[in-house]
Amino acid sequence: MPALTLAELQSHLGGSIRGDPGTLVLGVASLQQAKPHQLGFVLNAKYLPQAVHSQAGALIVPDTADAEPFLHAVRQPCLAVANPHAAFAHAIALLQPEPQLAEDYDTSAVVAEDALIGDDVRIGAGAVIGAGASIGARCQIGPLSVIGPGVVLGDDCILHARVVVQHGCSLGNRVILHPGVVIGADGFGLAWDANSAGGRWLKVPQAGRAILEDDVEVGANTCIDRGALDDTVIETGVKLDNQIQIAHNCRIGRHTAIAACVGIAGSTTIGAYCQIGGAAMIIGHLNICDRVTISAGTFVAKDIREPGVYTSVQPLMKHEDWKHNAVHLRHLDALVRRIKSLEEKFKED
Amino acid sequence: MPALTLAELQSHLGGSIRGDPGTLVLGVASLQQAKPHQLGFVLNAKYLPQAVHSQAGALIVPDTADAEPFLHAVRQPCLAVANPHAAFAHAIALLQPEPQLAEDYDTSAVVAEDALIGDDVRIGAGAVIGAGASIGARCQIGPLSVIGPGVVLGDDCILHARVVVQHGCSLGNRVILHPGVVIGADGFGLAWDANSAGGRWLKVPQAGRAILEDDVEVGANTCIDRGALDDTVIETGVKLDNQIQIAHNCRIGRHTAIAACVGIAGSTTIGAYCQIGGAAMIIGHLNICDRVTISAGTFVAKDIREPGVYTSVQPLMKHEDWKHNAVHLRHLDALVRRIKSLEEKFKED
Amino acid sequence: MPALTLAELQSHLGGSIRGDPGTLVLGVASLQQAKPHQLGFVLNAKYLPQAVHSQAGALIVPDTADAEPFLHAVRQPCLAVANPHAAFAHAIALLQPEPQLAEDYDTSAVVAEDALIGDDVRIGAGAVIGAGASIGARCQIGPLSVIGPGVVLGDDCILHARVVVQHGCSLGNRVILHPGVVIGADGFGLAWDANSAGGRWLKVPQAGRAILEDDVEVGANTCIDRGALDDTVIETGVKLDNQIQIAHNCRIGRHTAIAACVGIAGSTTIGAYCQIGGAAMIIGHLNICDRVTISAGTFVAKDIREPGVYTSVQPLMKHEDWKHNAVHLRHLDALVRRIKSLEEKFKED
Repeated sequence: MPALTLAELQSHLGGSIRGDPGTLVLGVASLQQAKPHQLGFVLNAKYLPQAVHSQAGALIVPDTADAEPFLHAVRQPCLAVANPHAAFAHAIALLQPEPQLAEDYDTSAVVAEDALIGDDVRIGAGAVIGAGASIGARCQIGPLSVIGPGVVLGDDCILHARVVVQHGCSLGNRVILHPGVVIGADGFGLAWDANSAGGRWLKVPQAGRAILEDDVEVGANTCIDRGALDDTVIETGVKLDNQIQIAHNCRIGRHTAIAACVGIAGSTTIGAYCQIGGAAMIIGHLNICDRVTISAGTFVAKDIREPGVYTSVQPLMKHEDWKHNAVHLRHLDALVRRIKSLEEKFKED
Repeated sequence: MPALTLAELQSHLGGSIRGDPGTLVLGVASLQQAKPHQLGFVLNAKYLPQAVHSQAGALIVPDTADAEPFLHAVRQPCLAVANPHAAFAHAIALLQPEPQLAEDYDTSAVVAEDALIGDDVRIGAGAVIGAGASIGARCQIGPLSVIGPGVVLGDDCILHARVVVQHGCSLGNRVILHPGVVIGADGFGLAWDANSAGGRWLKVPQAGRAILEDDVEVGANTCIDRGALDDTVIETGVKLDNQIQIAHNCRIGRHTAIAACVGIAGSTTIGAYCQIGGAAMIIGHLNICDRVTISAGTFVAKDIREPGVYTSVQPLMKHEDWKHNAVHLRHLDALVRRIKSLEEKFKED
Repeated sequence: MPALTLAELQSHLGGSIRGDPGTLVLGVASLQQAKPHQLGFVLNAKYLPQAVHSQAGALIVPDTADAEPFLHAVRQPCLAVANPHAAFAHAIALLQPEPQLAEDYDTSAVVAEDALIGDDVRIGAGAVIGAGASIGARCQIGPLSVIGPGVVLGDDCILHARVVVQHGCSLGNRVILHPGVVIGADGFGLAWDANSAGGRWLKVPQAGRAILEDDVEVGANTCIDRGALDDTVIETGVKLDNQIQIAHNCRIGRHTAIAACVGIAGSTTIGAYCQIGGAAMIIGHLNICDRVTISAGTFVAKDIREPGVYTSVQPLMKHEDWKHNAVHLRHLDALVRRIKSLEEKFKED
């Protein structure tokens, strides 16, 4: 684990130092758990009172005006920056770099003869690279990952262990795929065949691709299906958490962030700069405009044409209360008619 | 990519040709994106006006009476068929066949000595076939898939990359499993042991199997658990999308289609020809009869004994509206009592 | 498959025998499906009338007072025990043991030179063990599983096929991971960078670990993310079903059981001895106290400070009824104001 002085951190992160620039830190930790050799961080002025009690040996703090009155109480050397969260992200990468794959290919990897492999690519144990695939410079392909025939990866992609990218799909630069991700599996395309006794479903082969643009990150066990005819497209900078399902022919606009367990059905288009809460479910063939926030657990069954926050969840109740309240949901229409009738009678009265 | 004339397509798909039977097509595309060398398709008469503007070089169209008035406006050569969706599915398979595994076994595959491997089976890189497994003719086992001990596969199954079928489970003919599928993991069987300090859960070993009948398709990262004692059964022609969870001892009736992110708890039986929308959740020990449609996002907590469409979702609102409306759900019972009291007072009056 | 007499079962399970102690059984089955050579079991007195019609050759039955009046009608030899469910779990393990990996390492496994491998460890085909990993005695590492660098496993863990444990994470003793499980993937840590044109998300490297204590079981395709700075902790005896998502910095208290498809967002703490129903969704930064039951499909968006059962689901309706009822949910606040106004008018009257 590398050790860095505040001055060295400043050379990477910018900002201004308060206290001894030679203060050495060796790893990062939360304010609560930090030890005297570790770097902590203060997201905004609100957390500064907490920082006073932290054992952290140095802090990244906001350089905003509202932080100033609190900073005098902080005894640790600080690096004050405009965006502490971003600076801390950078500091973690410097102080606690993740393990890298060994250089070159593990001998157990199975790489097709005609695959094009860029400079400084690292390929983990047992990974499989298909015919005609093209892997950009400095990519890391994790152990037991499968890159299908004809797949194209840009530069500097990181595919963790046990990822699948199916045939013909393409990834931009700096794409990150976590374990268990499946890119480009068949969409759910079925045609009804009424001629068979009682009828049956015929599979519609999925001829499109899944395209992930630059700087997309995809969480563990998330699936992005290939398009039916046209492509499924995940635009630049989209961040997807774990266990998400994105169906065929969806388009997710740039810099949209989607939390875990979300499902998006086929042919839905989501705008740029949206935020979708965990376990939200969005049906197919919808258009959601830019800068929409959808609350966790929300079910979306119609277009959203205006930016804003949208919600559709049931409030939590004690089960006994729920039993007494929820029963009326089945009779809400009758209830409204009873109110109307009272209103009319009252008017007549 | 193969090129076919309309006449050649007709020899596979039937139907009647309008225009030049020698028209050559080389791949498929959507009406919007098709180029002049590609085949487009028109699902039903409603889409024919759109077809007029398509650059597609030829079209598959419906031969129904309601299509007739529009067809004269279409300038492309057409193949008119009774079921355009099914015909188009067939055409995609002909014009854009998916890449196949190389013949025979990849040398990196690990195949148990006593496994029975049928004729023309293809086994991908790094796949593992367990002791006593039996693989039917013409099956394809994708790279890094695991077929457990004693598993039985029928003929013509396609297992994509990184699939697991656990010990003793069985698949019929023409079963398709997409990447990340897990068939036959242990069901969630627990027995409470009150004798331990504070109590603890004991694992109940799962002694049943998961049985998939003919023509079942299972989407990426979907799980079908083995039975606890009896078997979990997925009947003929069932189609499952991605990220579905089917718990131990469920039975899913023939030709039922289930969209992504659905969860079905243990010992529930679902009838034939049902359609279950995405993210629907069905609790355990229920019976759902044949020909039931469950809307996306719906929570099912009781038996369904009549065919029909069933729903239970909250409508989407702006978050501000939701805050004002949802708070009353906690007091719905009190509200109903207030209405009753008004009604009584009015009567007395 | 081993055959055991009732007397031999009694030597393992305790209890008292009714009928011939030499009765031989050869496998287990449900009461409905059991054949004369198989052992069935009766969970409690309620199921005894069903046992009378079972073909099972022997039964495990409750030794409780309320069972006594029914037992005379049962013609099969019985082993009467205090906890039939626990005894039957034990009997299954004896009568239908699961297939084990071959002893030692499969030659296709890739084990780092400096990994510490305990006594009697079995490693399946194609598994990958990273640098500096430490595997306790008698662990089984399934085929195509990946143990990252520096991972620590206690004794007697069973990792099924195709599991990933990412770098630095640790598992206690007797932990079971089912296929497709991902332990220690990055949490969803993002910092907003407003300086880039239009803004963009920066990745916050995840420097914590995922810690699973003793006797934890994790179902197929479930993900447990590593902590952002501090660790994600799954305490002793926690049982997780399939397709669950546990985000970074969560803590799940000991002996809590969580059913399939549940999502728990970041930094939420769940107490001990809780039961969480399938597809429940719990937002981040909450505290749920000990001994809470959350119903299936429930959405939890606030702390729970009292033990009890909590629910928040919509009741199922025929779609036509739902259309008429659900529309009023958007106007519930207006409706309440109408009732208030009626009440006031009535008072004035």
